[in-house]
Amino acid sequence: MGMMSVMPDRTLSDLAQRVLRHRDERDWAQFHTPKELAVSLVVEAAELLSLMQWKTGEDLKAAVERRREQLRDELADVLHSTLLLASDLGVDLGEALEQKLAKDAEKYPIEKSRGRAEKYTDL
Amino acid sequence: MGMMSVMPDRTLSDLAQRVLRHRDERDWAQFHTPKELAVSLVVEAAELLSLMQWKTGEDLKAAVERRREQLRDELADVLHSTLLLASDLGVDLGEALEQKLAKDAEKYPIEKSRGRAEKYTDL
Amino acid sequence: MGMMSVMPDRTLSDLAQRVLRHRDERDWAQFHTPKELAVSLVVEAAELLSLMQWKTGEDLKAAVERRREQLRDELADVLHSTLLLASDLGVDLGEALEQKLAKDAEKYPIEKSRGRAEKYTDL
Amino acid sequence: MGMMSVMPDRTLSDLAQRVLRHRDERDWAQFHTPKELAVSLVVEAAELLSLMQWKTGEDLKAAVERRREQLRDELADVLHSTLLLASDLGVDLGEALEQKLAKDAEKYPIEKSRGRAEKYTDL
Repeated sequence: MGMMSVMPDRTLSDLAQRVLRHRDERDWAQFHTPKELAVSLVVEAAELLSLMQWKTGEDLKAAVERRREQLRDELADVLHSTLLLASDLGVDLGEALEQKLAKDAEKYPIEKSRGRAEKYTDL
Repeated sequence: MGMMSVMPDRTLSDLAQRVLRHRDERDWAQFHTPKELAVSLVVEAAELLSLMQWKTGEDLKAAVERRREQLRDELADVLHSTLLLASDLGVDLGEALEQKLAKDAEKYPIEKSRGRAEKYTDL
Repeated sequence: MGMMSVMPDRTLSDLAQRVLRHRDERDWAQFHTPKELAVSLVVEAAELLSLMQWKTGEDLKAAVERRREQLRDELADVLHSTLLLASDLGVDLGEALEQKLAKDAEKYPIEKSRGRAEKYTDL
Repeated sequence: MGMMSVMPDRTLSDLAQRVLRHRDERDWAQFHTPKELAVSLVVEAAELLSLMQWKTGEDLKAAVERRREQLRDELADVLHSTLLLASDLGVDLGEALEQKLAKDAEKYPIEKSRGRAEKYTDL
């Protein structure tokens, strides 16, 4: 906990090292194929979504409030698997994000996509 | 690209600011409810997984090689949604990851879980 | 098409035989492990969901109208994988559904769950 | 249980009526929008997949054996949501499956796809 106060804003490398250490202490790399990590990602994302199932409007807001800690844990699990998968594939996540945003900005130019929920093929 | 060379290791805050800017330039916050972002996360994770469908062994390795750029883009999308959702829920992702790893370390003590793929309830 | 008019309401066995024939003509049983079929199921369900992403209210209704054929195809894919997986696991789907509904009816008694979207643990 | 022995092979209409009755007794149609049912489908498919997570080879076979009843229940849930969604969208599932198989047969001709796990775009 003390560590957190002196590391208020970690880098992706810090976080990646952290999850790799957790993995290697348990000798789990053998189970972490890219496909298995992708399965893990989809399972965790679905668990996160399930916390908000069947709810809309005020009921949804209340559910989000009530299950804040679970949502937080599921988000952490998603980030965990993302970091492991990126490491396994040799992907620099910060760079990948930057380049994907550049591609998205071409598909969704500001002037055409502002305030619209359409897929780029329908813009 | 130049930016990347001077920002070799971005912090989570840098990345969060980056995706929030992309969102706000397009006035998309109105569509980004936590539930819709969780849907997005699950859809992107499934797209990532679909790139490795039906493959095992050497065929899987070859598919991963051949589709490296798509895998990278899907990983970037997953991180993108994770950052937006964390921002929306007011979750500090670095702290959430640290605390979740601490919980996991209790459920999966090193000595009991080393080299085993069992769920903690089966250890 | 002619066949359809004389088989207006197929049984699960009819449908299972139909997809098994499609599979065996292509010698695909070798790829259809239960895990791979479950991956397939989640990928197809996510594709179905993606057709309604980012939409609510009237926009959602319009998207459902516009993409009716795609939704239909994705539903067919989901049923396809469900039938293959049930066959592989030796599950009688009709019986499994009947017994699961009986369990659900215990968790969600009519008088307690009527008109409520709560999980049974919150009723 | 007695009913099952005299209804060894139910039709899709029988099953659809069964789940619609379960729904209407609880006045749940109000929560069952197509989007919410698609969320449900993805959540259940992911739960099914999670029962086989991290396992391969003999460990996977053992897990499938050990969790047969849970797998069966998840398959029933998937079929349940599929039937509700088809009913909501006015889709005849048997016909949809037949037509989708015809499309797939064009994309995957027997002679080109036999014994191959490639996507049709790679055949």
